[in-house]
Amino acid sequence: MDPDAVAKAFVEHYYATFDSNRPGLANLYQDGSMLTFEGQKIQGAQSIVAKLTSLPFQQCQHNITTVDCQPSGAGGMLVFVSGTLQLSGEQHALKFSQMFHLMPTQQGSFYVLNDIFRLNYA
Amino acid sequence: MDPDAVAKAFVEHYYATFDSNRPGLANLYQDGSMLTFEGQKIQGAQSIVAKLTSLPFQQCQHNITTVDCQPSGAGGMLVFVSGTLQLSGEQHALKFSQMFHLMPTQQGSFYVLNDIFRLNYA
Repeated sequence: MDPDAVAKAFVEHYYATFDSNRPGLANLYQDGSMLTFEGQKIQGAQSIVAKLTSLPFQQCQHNITTVDCQPSGAGGMLVFVSGTLQLSGEQHALKFSQMFHLMPTQQGSFYVLNDIFRLNYA
Repeated sequence: MDPDAVAKAFVEHYYATFDSNRPGLANLYQDGSMLTFEGQKIQGAQSIVAKLTSLPFQQCQHNITTVDCQPSGAGGMLVFVSGTLQLSGEQHALKFSQMFHLMPTQQGSFYVLNDIFRLNYA
């Protein structure tokens, strides 16, 4: 299993879900998951998805610029993403950076243990 | 020990060392440390510092915009930084994002296990 390929596949799945079916992101987090969204700390799949689904825009499109990946130790994988976020009705896309710490599930896939998101107001 | 305070102190120390004494960064990495610098993967303290000291500018100044921190599990700490990098002789500062995975040392401080750096060409 090529870690870079796994990371890229995860990232594509994550943002495709975010852009088309935000409540579906609940499957990618667990109770111990942490999100820091523009400095706001949120814990647990339910609270994280409540935050993400309450963001004040209806439609968005993430475009990925870079994906970097490293093993984190203890079976986990760190994934660092940069890209742009186009909100419906806005002329200019926003740049963002995001990191995920993915941990293996018992079913052989991954869940998000750590998630930190920041806009870089370009 | 407040993790956010530890993260902020580490980040300030890291960039102060980078900007004033780049070879001194060797003390913050170990043999198992990983750096991904603009997509290039480098492993081990010696190779990482060789990379960082060979970057094609003599003087630089990092300015930190945001520092976010989460426990990574297994005693580690994830630190996510955004900021600007001013190179000597350049008119405009470059935006960057960087993440560190800090692990405790036997001496009670931290070393960098994972380091991923990206410029966001603003």
